[in-house]
Amino acid sequence: MKARIKITLKSGVLDPQGKAIEHALGGLGFDGIEGVRQGKYIELELAETNPEAAKAQVKEMCKQLLANTVIENYSFELEEA
Amino acid sequence: MKARIKITLKSGVLDPQGKAIEHALGGLGFDGIEGVRQGKYIELELAETNPEAAKAQVKEMCKQLLANTVIENYSFELEEA
Repeated sequence: MKARIKITLKSGVLDPQGKAIEHALGGLGFDGIEGVRQGKYIELELAETNPEAAKAQVKEMCKQLLANTVIENYSFELEEA
Repeated sequence: MKARIKITLKSGVLDPQGKAIEHALGGLGFDGIEGVRQGKYIELELAETNPEAAKAQVKEMCKQLLANTVIENYSFELEEA
Protein backbone atom coordinates (compact mmCIF):
# COMPACT_ATOMS: atom_id res chain seq x y z
CA MET A 1 0.00 0.00 0.00
CA LYS A 2 1.05 3.55 -0.56
CA ALA A 3 0.97 6.01 2.35
CA ARG A 4 0.93 9.79 1.91
CA ILE A 5 1.80 11.54 5.16
CA LYS A 6 1.47 15.23 5.91
CA ILE A 7 3.29 16.67 8.90
CA THR A 8 2.40 20.20 9.94
CA LEU A 9 3.40 22.44 12.80
CA LYS A 10 0.76 22.79 15.48
CA SER A 11 -0.98 26.12 15.48
CA GLY A 12 0.75 28.41 17.93
CA VAL A 13 4.19 27.08 17.07
CA LEU A 14 6.26 29.75 15.34
CA ASP A 15 7.02 29.00 11.70
CA PRO A 16 9.87 31.25 10.50
CA GLN A 17 10.16 29.33 7.23
CA GLY A 18 6.49 30.00 6.50
CA LYS A 19 6.98 33.67 7.36
CA ALA A 20 9.94 33.85 4.97
CA ILE A 21 7.83 32.37 2.16
CA GLU A 22 5.01 34.81 2.93
CA HIS A 23 7.44 37.72 2.77
CA ALA A 24 8.99 36.47 -0.47
CA LEU A 25 5.56 36.06 -2.08
CA GLY A 26 4.71 39.63 -1.10
CA GLY A 27 7.97 40.78 -2.66
CA LEU A 28 7.06 39.03 -5.91
CA GLY A 29 3.81 40.98 -6.05
CA PHE A 30 1.39 38.36 -4.75
CA ASP A 31 -1.01 40.32 -2.57
CA GLY A 32 -3.48 39.12 0.01
CA ILE A 33 -1.47 36.07 1.06
CA GLU A 34 -1.34 35.24 4.73
CA GLY A 35 -1.01 32.38 7.18
CA VAL A 36 1.72 30.57 5.24
CA ARG A 37 2.82 27.43 7.08
CA GLN A 38 5.37 24.97 5.81
CA GLY A 39 5.28 21.31 6.68
CA LYS A 40 6.63 18.05 5.40
CA TYR A 41 5.13 15.58 2.99
CA ILE A 42 6.31 11.99 2.92
CA GLU A 43 5.32 9.21 0.54
CA LEU A 44 6.22 5.60 1.13
CA GLU A 45 5.36 2.07 0.06
CA LEU A 46 4.32 -0.53 2.62
CA ALA A 47 4.54 -4.26 2.03
CA GLU A 48 1.56 -4.64 4.43
CA THR A 49 -1.69 -5.22 2.52
CA ASN A 50 -4.22 -5.19 5.36
CA PRO A 51 -5.57 -1.61 5.63
CA GLU A 52 -6.02 -1.74 9.43
CA ALA A 53 -2.53 -3.10 10.03
CA ALA A 54 -1.04 -0.60 7.58
CA LYS A 55 -2.80 2.24 9.37
CA ALA A 56 -1.44 1.14 12.73
CA GLN A 57 2.05 0.81 11.26
CA VAL A 58 2.08 4.28 9.69
CA LYS A 59 0.74 5.79 12.91
CA GLU A 60 3.56 4.17 14.85
CA MET A 61 6.14 5.44 12.33
CA CYS A 62 4.81 8.98 12.69
CA LYS A 63 4.97 8.80 16.47
CA GLN A 64 8.41 7.23 16.66
CA LEU A 65 10.29 8.95 13.87
CA LEU A 66 8.52 11.08 11.31
CA ALA A 67 6.78 13.68 13.45
CA ASN A 68 7.79 15.46 16.62
CA THR A 69 4.41 15.17 18.31
CA VAL A 70 5.24 17.88 20.83
CA ILE A 71 5.14 20.55 18.13
CA GLU A 72 3.78 18.77 15.05
CA ASN A 73 0.55 17.15 13.92
CA TYR A 74 0.41 14.38 11.37
CA SER A 75 -2.27 13.02 9.08
CA PHE A 76 -2.08 10.40 6.38
CA GLU A 77 -3.97 8.63 3.63
CA LEU A 78 -3.49 5.06 2.50
CA GLU A 79 -4.02 3.92 -1.04
CA GLU A 80 -4.11 0.39 -2.43
CA ALA A 81 -1.11 -0.18 -4.67
CA MET B 1 -9.55 30.60 0.19
CA LYS B 2 -7.17 28.11 1.66
CA ALA B 3 -4.58 26.43 -0.57
CA ARG B 4 -2.81 23.19 0.32
CA ILE B 5 0.24 22.65 -1.84
CA LYS B 6 2.31 19.49 -2.13
CA ILE B 7 5.75 19.71 -3.69
CA THR B 8 7.46 16.45 -4.53
CA LEU B 9 10.70 15.50 -6.22
CA LYS B 10 10.25 14.21 -9.76
CA SER B 11 10.79 10.49 -10.08
CA GLY B 12 14.36 9.85 -11.11
CA VAL B 13 15.70 12.67 -8.94
CA LEU B 14 17.78 11.29 -6.09
CA ASP B 15 16.25 11.81 -2.65
CA PRO B 16 18.92 11.27 0.03
CA GLN B 17 16.58 12.55 2.75
CA GLY B 18 13.99 9.93 1.78
CA LYS B 19 16.70 7.26 1.78
CA ALA B 20 17.79 8.34 5.27
CA ILE B 21 14.20 8.05 6.54
CA GLU B 22 13.86 4.62 4.93
CA HIS B 23 17.06 3.46 6.58
CA ALA B 24 15.99 4.86 9.97
CA LEU B 25 12.59 3.15 9.73
CA GLY B 26 14.35 -0.13 8.99
CA GLY B 27 16.55 0.43 12.03
CA LEU B 28 13.48 0.91 14.21
CA GLY B 29 12.13 -2.45 13.09
CA PHE B 30 9.62 -1.36 10.46
CA ASP B 31 9.96 -3.97 7.74
CA GLY B 32 8.76 -3.91 4.17
CA ILE B 33 9.06 -0.15 3.74
CA GLU B 34 10.40 1.15 0.46
CA GLY B 35 10.26 4.05 -1.93
CA VAL B 36 10.34 6.73 0.76
CA ARG B 37 10.29 10.22 -0.78
CA GLN B 38 10.20 13.43 1.17
CA GLY B 39 8.60 16.56 -0.17
CA LYS B 40 7.24 19.83 1.11
CA TYR B 41 3.74 20.74 2.17
CA ILE B 42 2.64 24.37 2.27
CA GLU B 43 -0.63 25.81 3.48
CA LEU B 44 -1.64 29.41 2.86
CA GLU B 45 -4.63 31.72 2.90
CA LEU B 46 -5.56 33.70 -0.20
CA ALA B 47 -7.66 36.86 -0.11
CA GLU B 48 -8.88 35.94 -3.63
CA THR B 49 -12.37 34.42 -3.55
CA ASN B 50 -12.84 33.47 -7.20
CA PRO B 51 -11.76 29.80 -7.54
CA GLU B 52 -10.43 30.21 -11.09
CA ALA B 53 -8.37 33.28 -10.21
CA ALA B 54 -7.11 31.64 -7.01
CA LYS B 55 -6.03 28.57 -8.99
CA ALA B 56 -4.10 30.72 -11.47
CA GLN B 57 -2.47 32.64 -8.61
CA VAL B 58 -1.33 29.51 -6.74
CA LYS B 59 0.01 27.99 -9.97
CA GLU B 60 2.04 31.14 -10.60
CA MET B 61 3.39 31.09 -7.01
CA CYS B 62 4.49 27.48 -7.42
CA LYS B 63 6.26 28.24 -10.69
CA GLN B 64 7.96 31.42 -9.49
CA LEU B 65 8.91 30.57 -5.93
CA LEU B 66 7.61 27.50 -4.19
CA ALA B 67 8.74 24.70 -6.51
CA ASN B 68 11.86 24.21 -8.56
CA THR B 69 10.09 22.89 -11.64
CA VAL B 70 13.30 21.43 -13.07
CA ILE B 71 13.39 18.77 -10.37
CA GLU B 72 10.06 19.09 -8.54
CA ASN B 73 6.39 18.56 -9.28
CA TYR B 74 3.64 20.44 -7.51
CA SER B 75 -0.05 19.84 -6.95
CA PHE B 76 -2.55 21.73 -4.87
CA GLU B 77 -6.11 21.80 -3.60
CA LEU B 78 -8.19 24.88 -2.89
CA GLU B 79 -10.81 25.04 -0.21
CA GLU B 80 -13.40 27.75 0.46
CA ALA B 81 -12.61 29.53 3.69
